[in-house]
Amino acid sequence: MNKSTKQKAITILGSTGSIGTQTLDIVTHHPDKFRVVGLAAGNNIKLLAEQIRTFKPEIVATSYPEKVAELQNAIADIPDPPQILAGTEGVAEVARYGDAESVVTGIVGCAGLLPTIAAIEAGKDIALANKETLIAGAPVVLPLVKKHGVKLLPADSEHSAIFQCLQGVPENGLRRIILTASGGSFRDLPVEKLATVTVQDALKHPNWTMGQKITIDSATLMNKGLEVIEAHYLFGLDYDRIDIVIHPQSIIHSLIEVQDTSMLAQLGWPDMRLPLLYALSWPERIYTDWKQLDLVKAGDLTFREPDHQKYPCMQLAYAAGRAGGLMPAVLNAANEQAVALFLAEKIDFLDIPKFIEKICDRFNIQNEQNPSLDDILEADTWARKAILEVQ
Amino acid sequence: MNKSTKQKAITILGSTGSIGTQTLDIVTHHPDKFRVVGLAAGNNIKLLAEQIRTFKPEIVATSYPEKVAELQNAIADIPDPPQILAGTEGVAEVARYGDAESVVTGIVGCAGLLPTIAAIEAGKDIALANKETLIAGAPVVLPLVKKHGVKLLPADSEHSAIFQCLQGVPENGLRRIILTASGGSFRDLPVEKLATVTVQDALKHPNWTMGQKITIDSATLMNKGLEVIEAHYLFGLDYDRIDIVIHPQSIIHSLIEVQDTSMLAQLGWPDMRLPLLYALSWPERIYTDWKQLDLVKAGDLTFREPDHQKYPCMQLAYAAGRAGGLMPAVLNAANEQAVALFLAEKIDFLDIPKFIEKICDRFNIQNEQNPSLDDILEADTWARKAILEVQ
Repeated sequence: MNKSTKQKAITILGSTGSIGTQTLDIVTHHPDKFRVVGLAAGNNIKLLAEQIRTFKPEIVATSYPEKVAELQNAIADIPDPPQILAGTEGVAEVARYGDAESVVTGIVGCAGLLPTIAAIEAGKDIALANKETLIAGAPVVLPLVKKHGVKLLPADSEHSAIFQCLQGVPENGLRRIILTASGGSFRDLPVEKLATVTVQDALKHPNWTMGQKITIDSATLMNKGLEVIEAHYLFGLDYDRIDIVIHPQSIIHSLIEVQDTSMLAQLGWPDMRLPLLYALSWPERIYTDWKQLDLVKAGDLTFREPDHQKYPCMQLAYAAGRAGGLMPAVLNAANEQAVALFLAEKIDFLDIPKFIEKICDRFNIQNEQNPSLDDILEADTWARKAILEVQ
Repeated sequence: MNKSTKQKAITILGSTGSIGTQTLDIVTHHPDKFRVVGLAAGNNIKLLAEQIRTFKPEIVATSYPEKVAELQNAIADIPDPPQILAGTEGVAEVARYGDAESVVTGIVGCAGLLPTIAAIEAGKDIALANKETLIAGAPVVLPLVKKHGVKLLPADSEHSAIFQCLQGVPENGLRRIILTASGGSFRDLPVEKLATVTVQDALKHPNWTMGQKITIDSATLMNKGLEVIEAHYLFGLDYDRIDIVIHPQSIIHSLIEVQDTSMLAQLGWPDMRLPLLYALSWPERIYTDWKQLDLVKAGDLTFREPDHQKYPCMQLAYAAGRAGGLMPAVLNAANEQAVALFLAEKIDFLDIPKFIEKICDRFNIQNEQNPSLDDILEADTWARKAILEVQ
């Protein structure tokens, strides 16, 4: 069978979430290219059961052991049901199972770390959609990636853009990365008005509708700060060679500069499926009937320097990235809690960076450059608790 | 010696012209990367002699046999002078001489065809800066490129942009090419005012100063039409997959779309040296201290559909490209003569496409799909003469 026409076996962790359902949409439209080996989900048993009927995986897990009976019940009439596992170890077993070449890691948070590591140790390529894998896990994950010779293929828009641009660039050819940022809900608001913004104001993203957490991260530009850290680990570039530019139209998904000053950019309508598809099809390019970008209809492409006074989270992320070790895990956990407190209307918008900074400052004395996975999970837990004390 | 640190041996045809002097500027700044084996020029003997002193080539030619004595005289005091040749055959001998890996073809017009073919037959890669090589010569040149296993590396901004974007794209991954056009002197002039424009108006290019011929080609968009034909031959794409978009800022030098709808673009400040350097250093990226692109300083990037009524030359080029065979050679020669007549104030601006169209229509009956080099040179000569008769 020709390599390019062979079905690629994939496993999806977090199959009922946004990443998971979009990956399965890709499989639905390219049944000749992909088949599903394993699925892991949380407590959306109804959707997971539907996915089992449609995609006929060999193995399935729910991270909730108490949901196994419900799932068994929901697929009781299937003649050839998949193996059903549960809990953290069940999800890890799905991740390492069978002949899947690629595992899509759509699980949110540090919960995604363990199964991702299981997949890497089983020699599978990772379509990377769980940001903690690198932001928190890099000190443990990167050596494993090297040891097992697997690929980390970015499945988010910005890192995929950089990865796409890098394809033809020789080793040491990369000089600079420029991550584009939409600028979030407050990009046109003067900095002095940020003190009084409400949760409702912050949730109005100018370009698209997303989850609440990521919409706030977009407004603080912490999303971009975290992407800087991921880019550092993914592409091996110093922090002073990773820049951020505000690009309100979100048509250019990011850019690179190479040694001779030439710049390469990846463009498209915003569509999460594109980076997902490339992470799965790489190095091939699979034909799709998705809407083609029309530069004239896309309108003017504009760029602004990000204002550090307005977006202090950006600098906090650079500082945490430069500190390395456990600090990016602490930053990420502190940010999650701070955003949760803001969404619960317990702190103001401008408190988000203040709280994060306090936690990072406190942690600084006990940072560890070569942490274990346990150290990482502990730092994550510590930061989440510590921020409640700060409050 | 490490491959990446080895000096690459190059030969430059048209060394005293714009392409030639910029290539030598690159050599001057990267003496560890490049050395000059051969130089060929026309009648600028003073500059050629200077170049001989500086770059110490092994072989040199002037296309003017009557200039040999002057050249010999000018370098009489050099202890170890290069071999000096003259005329068309002398230039061809320089092109095929010695251990040069790459030949920069900076000779203008069909005069560049013969030495380019000589270089290809000698197994040398071509840094392609002579547009007739493909527009007129493709039916002869492309089979030779294949036969001798050499590379045609585009050294102009637009095709280099496409070539750069294509580096990581697998075979059959390319779906569409989008060539960007500045829009030329009349991009903001309503079409109905074109009837009365003067030569002086036409020579005011909004973005930069170039030669007269290319400035007029930019105003008629024939430059872009000719690039469409070159792109067709270079990248093997059907004409209906090669588009033109007006991009007044000339920051995005061209774009490609791949099968999954992702688009890749190459960007930079306008600088002819960048594509030249890449044509010579490919697949490496050599560090330069050239001005890095700053997207914020570059300002808004805008795009417009090219108006076919305003730019009829575009459609003439697509039609000639689709007709294939000798027709692109005829189009190119007719355009050169029509532009010369316009510059001499013998015809109006709007006569340029009319004259070209008449010549192409007349030639249509005698087109030849598999012409010889003689057929091509003959068609070129025919078109130049025929347009004077039309007049």
